[in-house]
Amino acid sequence: MEPATDTSSPEIGDQITVTPIEATEAELAGVRYNADGLVGAIVQEHGTGQVLMFAWMNEPALRRTLETGRMWYWSRSRQEYWCKGETSGDRQYVREALYDCDVDALLFVVEQEGRGACHTGERSCFFRAFGGGATPGPV
Amino acid sequence: MEPATDTSSPEIGDQITVTPIEATEAELAGVRYNADGLVGAIVQEHGTGQVLMFAWMNEPALRRTLETGRMWYWSRSRQEYWCKGETSGDRQYVREALYDCDVDALLFVVEQEGRGACHTGERSCFFRAFGGGATPGPV
Repeated sequence: MEPATDTSSPEIGDQITVTPIEATEAELAGVRYNADGLVGAIVQEHGTGQVLMFAWMNEPALRRTLETGRMWYWSRSRQEYWCKGETSGDRQYVREALYDCDVDALLFVVEQEGRGACHTGERSCFFRAFGGGATPGPV
Repeated sequence: MEPATDTSSPEIGDQITVTPIEATEAELAGVRYNADGLVGAIVQEHGTGQVLMFAWMNEPALRRTLETGRMWYWSRSRQEYWCKGETSGDRQYVREALYDCDVDALLFVVEQEGRGACHTGERSCFFRAFGGGATPGPV
């Protein structure tokens, strides 16, 4: 499949290449979802290797992600799909989609647009360290 | 706390520095475990940035990890703690321990000894990609 160009972000000067991934049905059928029908997705930034976030996918979210080349998740709190960056502009474009030896965890290497992955404005959701003395609790 | 030296691996030529992390009780109390009392742990290699594996911890496993500077997990299938590399020699030494904005996912940056993190002999458990045509299913 030829890479397509996403023209949905006119505010971005450089056009981002969208690279859908053609997974086989056997690969997709091999994924082991948990009791809630979800599989964890680690998101790592292309180039820097920084781990940006961790979120959940169900099978339709995984299929949409691979088919569209954009990261789709399943929100457990809102019980709905969301496409990362659709409202914030902080879009994520898939560069690699890997699965682990148990096929119950996924790793996506993405190109991160905008400020970053975290709703706080931090580039990565993992911006606090144990022993760092930050205020605990969700932000 | 002064870094200690792990002398439990005489087969390794260079001694590995063990760096326990002094988390506060408030930080530990802030971690949000799932209904099974578990929290997901992403493991990334120090230096290379490669994502090595994803596994689960309960609170005692997290505390042991921070106190000992070695990665401890909770095995859901065996219902027991395990210290990575204790039998294989593929030990993991903690360099950084981070938590995400929701405090329901953890990220550990580790020094990986031995062959790597995966029981298959691969350095990373994420050695297969969607669209790569590998045999699906657990290995």
